[in-house]
Amino acid sequence: METILTGDRPTGPLHLGHYVGSLRNRVALQSQHRQFVMIADLQALTDTDAAKVRANVLEAAYDYLAVGIDPAQSTIFIQSQVPELAELTLHYLNLVSLARLERNPTVKEEIRQRGFERDVPAGFLTYPVSQAADITAFKATLVPVGADQQPMIEQTNEIVRRFNAMAGKMVLVECAALIPDQGRLPGLDGGAKMGKSLGNALALSASPEELRAAVKRMYTDRNHLRVEDPGQVEGNVAFAYLDAFDPDVAAVAALKDHYRRGGLGDTTVKERLEKVLAAFLDPIRARRESVARNPGAVRDMLRDGGVRARAVAAQTLGEVREVLGLDYFG
Amino acid sequence: METILTGDRPTGPLHLGHYVGSLRNRVALQSQHRQFVMIADLQALTDTDAAKVRANVLEAAYDYLAVGIDPAQSTIFIQSQVPELAELTLHYLNLVSLARLERNPTVKEEIRQRGFERDVPAGFLTYPVSQAADITAFKATLVPVGADQQPMIEQTNEIVRRFNAMAGKMVLVECAALIPDQGRLPGLDGGAKMGKSLGNALALSASPEELRAAVKRMYTDRNHLRVEDPGQVEGNVAFAYLDAFDPDVAAVAALKDHYRRGGLGDTTVKERLEKVLAAFLDPIRARRESVARNPGAVRDMLRDGGVRARAVAAQTLGEVREVLGLDYFG
Repeated sequence: METILTGDRPTGPLHLGHYVGSLRNRVALQSQHRQFVMIADLQALTDTDAAKVRANVLEAAYDYLAVGIDPAQSTIFIQSQVPELAELTLHYLNLVSLARLERNPTVKEEIRQRGFERDVPAGFLTYPVSQAADITAFKATLVPVGADQQPMIEQTNEIVRRFNAMAGKMVLVECAALIPDQGRLPGLDGGAKMGKSLGNALALSASPEELRAAVKRMYTDRNHLRVEDPGQVEGNVAFAYLDAFDPDVAAVAALKDHYRRGGLGDTTVKERLEKVLAAFLDPIRARRESVARNPGAVRDMLRDGGVRARAVAAQTLGEVREVLGLDYFG
Repeated sequence: METILTGDRPTGPLHLGHYVGSLRNRVALQSQHRQFVMIADLQALTDTDAAKVRANVLEAAYDYLAVGIDPAQSTIFIQSQVPELAELTLHYLNLVSLARLERNPTVKEEIRQRGFERDVPAGFLTYPVSQAADITAFKATLVPVGADQQPMIEQTNEIVRRFNAMAGKMVLVECAALIPDQGRLPGLDGGAKMGKSLGNALALSASPEELRAAVKRMYTDRNHLRVEDPGQVEGNVAFAYLDAFDPDVAAVAALKDHYRRGGLGDTTVKERLEKVLAAFLDPIRARRESVARNPGAVRDMLRDGGVRARAVAAQTLGEVREVLGLDYFG
């Protein structure tokens, strides 16, 4: 049995990309493993307005419950409810050099994207250390992330090794990245990544009208001008989504052949895709509406999750404090 | 009434320099103000071995009690016993840029001294933010520091202003540095600063033999070779210490005149100084030995101090969390 730590920054609605990249795995893994699902509000605060973060915390919980993350099997909690994570972060900051943080390719790219350069907030530069605290606090062995997050896992394991070497015993546990086989779901615009901030995402909470509009504007093959022309399937977002969501694999294969040969219009492909996505999203939306009718119960669930998560994190922090000699009062 | 936050890194015995620079002020101020005296173990861990820090925590408490810091008037506590400080630090890291931290002249100089360069641990570079957390957690208005620590106070007040602007109200409180009039006590070797790590310090816990040896090797006037020669008082460590510790100001003034004129030997000056310092250190050593006979009582005092300090810091953290929208459960 593995221990899994996973989660999301609450900065906007979760979308199809999250589902393919991570949520689906969480639902599949929760029955056989020990899973912690963290709403990373503190991490979101490193680059996002507090009001926006606050507004999205409960929404993230609705999304989790809607897709089938089960609080009886997974511990769902809000990061800031576990102050032990902040203290662990502070201890780990002594084990990481500034140069090492600046070399982190994921953070480098994010700093570039956000235009921070040298004005990067210290909290943003150091967030991989905060992630290491999150992961190690629960002694997670498996962390489901995208391939671009691999450097975060390496950073965490460096801290683990450094701390254990200092302790002279195995206190913290190394983890492995769980990178989805299928790779990443492209954005509606054909971009490599679906992202809230990229404006190319379809939310799991999308209405039928939003779904229709999204499918309509979806990138297919810009050279496929007439129905009778041969079309290209590679890089065609409609087919990428059919691959990801259409349960009838044989039918999708036949459609692809037809599209390649020519004679299959984008409209036909998109009609099928809209039906497939509606069949996927309708029950999610229904469950979401149902749980959102009772925010008090969701809050209670998050509070309980926080209490359970704290107990585990406090245990690890106690071991770390002992190594650092901070257990003055036994 | 001011609120004072002050303290020391527990990395070695407190010495005469600490007394002149800060401890004396704390004893004088504690009856009229609200004073928190922090043993900064977490700050020490940013550049010091854990075993060394641990070994010096109780020693610092002995020193405090020995010089007259009164736990009935001052709240004496260990930094790591107040985890709210770690969480505040994490929140403030989002309000400070990397560039700003790198510009801090005090940290710059300390990085240079320690030979860290780009290998500076992230925890060391960010320790001014941790100090800001310490100061603001207690809403301290007055922080007794050496003149070289002024940039730390500026850094803290920048964070205060930035946070209050974000909050749209006065949540945190700006502080002022309290810089001792007398300036800094030189080292035994004539160096501008007495420092544990500089090897030029005389501990408050020094034995009579250590005192004698220290006075013997004390730097005076290297050109004052014969008793009958005129001597120089400026930069003469023996006179600097007489200025600091001899209660008979008139006698010291007369001695200085005599020394300047010639005819007064270093031996005579040092004999007087040794007596003056013995009169100062003997009761401190006696009180220190007395409290150190009961480490359990000192531990209890520190634990109580920690509980009181936590209550205050938790109040401030609650206000900060509310501004950040982290009060999900009321």
